Amino acid sequence: MKYAVIGTGAIGGYYGGRLAHSGQEVHFLAHSDYEEMRSQGLQVDSCLGSFIIENPRAYRSTSEMPVVDVVFVALKTVNNHLLPEMLKPIVGPDTIVVLIQNGIGVEEDLQAQMPGLQIATGLGFICSTKIGPAHISHQDYGALTLANYSVKDDNRVGQVATDLEQAGVATDILPYDFARWRKAIWNLPFNGLTVALNTDTLSLVNSEEGYALLKNIMMEVIALANAAGVESLNVEHALSNLEATRSMLPYAPSMKVDWDHHRPMEIYYLYTKALQKADALGVKAPYLEMLEKQLRYLERHRR
Amino acid sequence: MKYAVIGTGAIGGYYGGRLAHSGQEVHFLAHSDYEEMRSQGLQVDSCLGSFIIENPRAYRSTSEMPVVDVVFVALKTVNNHLLPEMLKPIVGPDTIVVLIQNGIGVEEDLQAQMPGLQIATGLGFICSTKIGPAHISHQDYGALTLANYSVKDDNRVGQVATDLEQAGVATDILPYDFARWRKAIWNLPFNGLTVALNTDTLSLVNSEEGYALLKNIMMEVIALANAAGVESLNVEHALSNLEATRSMLPYAPSMKVDWDHHRPMEIYYLYTKALQKADALGVKAPYLEMLEKQLRYLERHRR
Repeated sequence: MKYAVIGTGAIGGYYGGRLAHSGQEVHFLAHSDYEEMRSQGLQVDSCLGSFIIENPRAYRSTSEMPVVDVVFVALKTVNNHLLPEMLKPIVGPDTIVVLIQNGIGVEEDLQAQMPGLQIATGLGFICSTKIGPAHISHQDYGALTLANYSVKDDNRVGQVATDLEQAGVATDILPYDFARWRKAIWNLPFNGLTVALNTDTLSLVNSEEGYALLKNIMMEVIALANAAGVESLNVEHALSNLEATRSMLPYAPSMKVDWDHHRPMEIYYLYTKALQKADALGVKAPYLEMLEKQLRYLERHRR
Repeated sequence: MKYAVIGTGAIGGYYGGRLAHSGQEVHFLAHSDYEEMRSQGLQVDSCLGSFIIENPRAYRSTSEMPVVDVVFVALKTVNNHLLPEMLKPIVGPDTIVVLIQNGIGVEEDLQAQMPGLQIATGLGFICSTKIGPAHISHQDYGALTLANYSVKDDNRVGQVATDLEQAGVATDILPYDFARWRKAIWNLPFNGLTVALNTDTLSLVNSEEGYALLKNIMMEVIALANAAGVESLNVEHALSNLEATRSMLPYAPSMKVDWDHHRPMEIYYLYTKALQKADALGVKAPYLEMLEKQLRYLERHRR
């Protein structure tokens, strides 16, 4: 299969790099570091074994890229309005587009813009950072959960999983709604609160008030997931997320990293969209609502 | 009447200074600036007319002070555990203690510790700052609302109002619960949010998200006031508070000043106590609850 990676950053560079390293044909869309990709290759320093992709297939625009079988979209969702235009040149009738992105509702929005598109979801459980041009540092974890959103043949998603496994990436395949909401249980509280309180995951979870804030937001996410039809998520998922975070190193979630680097935050798909669903389902989520307003205030009044 | 002022800061120094300037006998408890009070007097720079109290009756401890008719308590509530001990030497059977302090429930706590005490409430609508030892700067407003909490004879509260009016302080007398809750409509949202979002009153009220956060919290305070028996407070009070703040200069509420100066914040009487009442009354106040947890987290993890 031919792969394309849209967004060769910490996530796209790692998973795409792994696939290329295992011998797959991978076409990388690069932006600011196109020159370094061409001259130095794509360097991945990884806790699971480092490697360099020499002479990667790098491009400045998707209009120069071929139609592929699988696209990994690893852009920040703040750029998702650009996706239809970017995807058109590389997507054929059988192409699968795997959205490796944060939040709730990214698939439905893209689907509305591109009705025939076959979409899958990739949820990375990974600590990875881009530390320089064409240079990724992968520190911990690395699994990718896949879920089928609108791919006609489930086996096609299975094939992507097989390719990833052969490239050294642990995968599993889960039902779409379950996978998205389960990840949201961790993502929504930790991303926003680390920004609002200028802290890290470990300080939060180890403080009495931080723990209470996290747990309250997790329970709101779970109530929302339940109302959205994912009935198997419950308080145990909140408690196990909290416990697991206690045993992680202090960590800055992606929104905190974006905030610290003065980049736009993914407020829309991490909060606004979830709150729109809460509204439509008649579920109250006041902590999420307040957190979203605080984040929007902070972003607008950044000093 | 003999007056005592416990806490000769921005508030106690101003109101006590006005009374002394009008010829009343006022005994001031001073702490760090006792020496300056004795040597330089108490200087009040005021938009309503500046003055200096030469040779004020200043003390280091209430044990050196006489029993008085009226005590103004203008300490931060974080020190209220010290009040019974401080009050004992200056309080007789007919003494009125006027708590000029922020928050909800300060009177009931002091009453529980000193059951016979005659307590009144003073709510300052004033912008005043201590800018140096024994040196107060009064920039704007200045009215003091009085309310009777447990003074046996209402006329005694009226007498204090008369003395204040003669000293140039606008006063009114309102029912206790109404006065406290009406002030809480402004105090609770603005104090906490300016700290949590590191901002000022005007930036908050002029931003879409800030306005929504403020209004939501005001509506929680109003619902709580209604449940506590103050039925006349309603959405109009929230809207008029918001509008009034738009026409004020950018302002740092007292909690923001405390936070910026690394002093303890009055979280207990501004939030915790109100939330305990919400709990007891079966009223939901999730924004207040979340804000209290955030403030406690920030105070504990101050960097």
